[in-house]
Amino acid sequence: MHTQDTITLRTRGQGLHDITRQVANWVADQGVRTGLLTIFCQHTSASLTIQENADPDVQADLETFFRRLVKEDAALYRHTMEGPDDMPAHIRSALTDVSLSIPVANGRLALGSWQGVYLFEHRFRSHTRRLILDLSS
Amino acid sequence: MHTQDTITLRTRGQGLHDITRQVANWVADQGVRTGLLTIFCQHTSASLTIQENADPDVQADLETFFRRLVKEDAALYRHTMEGPDDMPAHIRSALTDVSLSIPVANGRLALGSWQGVYLFEHRFRSHTRRLILDLSS
Amino acid sequence: MHTQDTITLRTRGQGLHDITRQVANWVADQGVRTGLLTIFCQHTSASLTIQENADPDVQADLETFFRRLVKEDAALYRHTMEGPDDMPAHIRSALTDVSLSIPVANGRLALGSWQGVYLFEHRFRSHTRRLILDLSS
Repeated sequence: MHTQDTITLRTRGQGLHDITRQVANWVADQGVRTGLLTIFCQHTSASLTIQENADPDVQADLETFFRRLVKEDAALYRHTMEGPDDMPAHIRSALTDVSLSIPVANGRLALGSWQGVYLFEHRFRSHTRRLILDLSS
Repeated sequence: MHTQDTITLRTRGQGLHDITRQVANWVADQGVRTGLLTIFCQHTSASLTIQENADPDVQADLETFFRRLVKEDAALYRHTMEGPDDMPAHIRSALTDVSLSIPVANGRLALGSWQGVYLFEHRFRSHTRRLILDLSS
Repeated sequence: MHTQDTITLRTRGQGLHDITRQVANWVADQGVRTGLLTIFCQHTSASLTIQENADPDVQADLETFFRRLVKEDAALYRHTMEGPDDMPAHIRSALTDVSLSIPVANGRLALGSWQGVYLFEHRFRSHTRRLILDLSS
């Protein structure tokens, strides 16, 4: 059986937005002991990732790495009419995840101690982002 | 319950091959209202990705990025006997996706408006590629 | 229905650890003809990948690529107190996979002929790593 819901988030520019608590609470509310949660991001300029949740420097370093690897330099791209951050956003999305599947065990999301779930916004400006949650039981 | 099928594709050299319609039609034909589709690529030199479906320049820019990041330069690799494009193909596959999971809602694949599903061929020559579709309901 | 189990592995420094046989045997033991296996890695400095299983040079080249792309150079990162290999490990995990979903058909893991499943250890030292297996049927 599949139970689904949609999360709508308002991002505030580039960076990682922690969605762990919101997702974990939704899972706990479903009353499913053993199953699989899949999170799906309905966008191509924002994505998902699981990262260390303890030191905020990890998130800053991750963002710095992606800025260096996928440059916001219009000379590198043909697709520039949506702004210098749009094509890099598509590439960064391809390099990270559009969907994540996490087991649910004993009624809870079975993340490791140091794992947090993040929406990774790749555009400069604030955007409304839709994530679909699918719980299979 | 799981329903499965296999898609066989003939690629025509490096690049993104749009499989959205073929996959969406198969899902619609199954008569499942709420579920989860998983696409699995049975190869290590082709992969899957979800990308923007509107401007073909996005696909060209994505390919250019991967050509620059993972060079087809035999001097960089030990594994060269299958050609200069084989080891880069394995690396590009590791950086993108071997499996994708997409929710099915109201009987349809719940992609965002601008999302297309692509098989990413990483080899120079034409290849026959097998994808497994798994629909969980 | 979901059946789950945990695999605990002792890694021996950086590199790919082949888990194909262990995972395939577990799946075969469950007696499920048609389903979906999801493997989830409960860590942020080790990850999962599917790679070519025939030539060990492929694995060496993959490791070399990631060492070159994500340098173990403390000057590049703020998060350095856990050692020069920790932040690169988080980035390499983001670039590869925390979860993999593989169809099960005719009671067996439906991998392609050349596909092997690997735990990718990104830290210098030996670590105990936990993977959750979820079989949906």
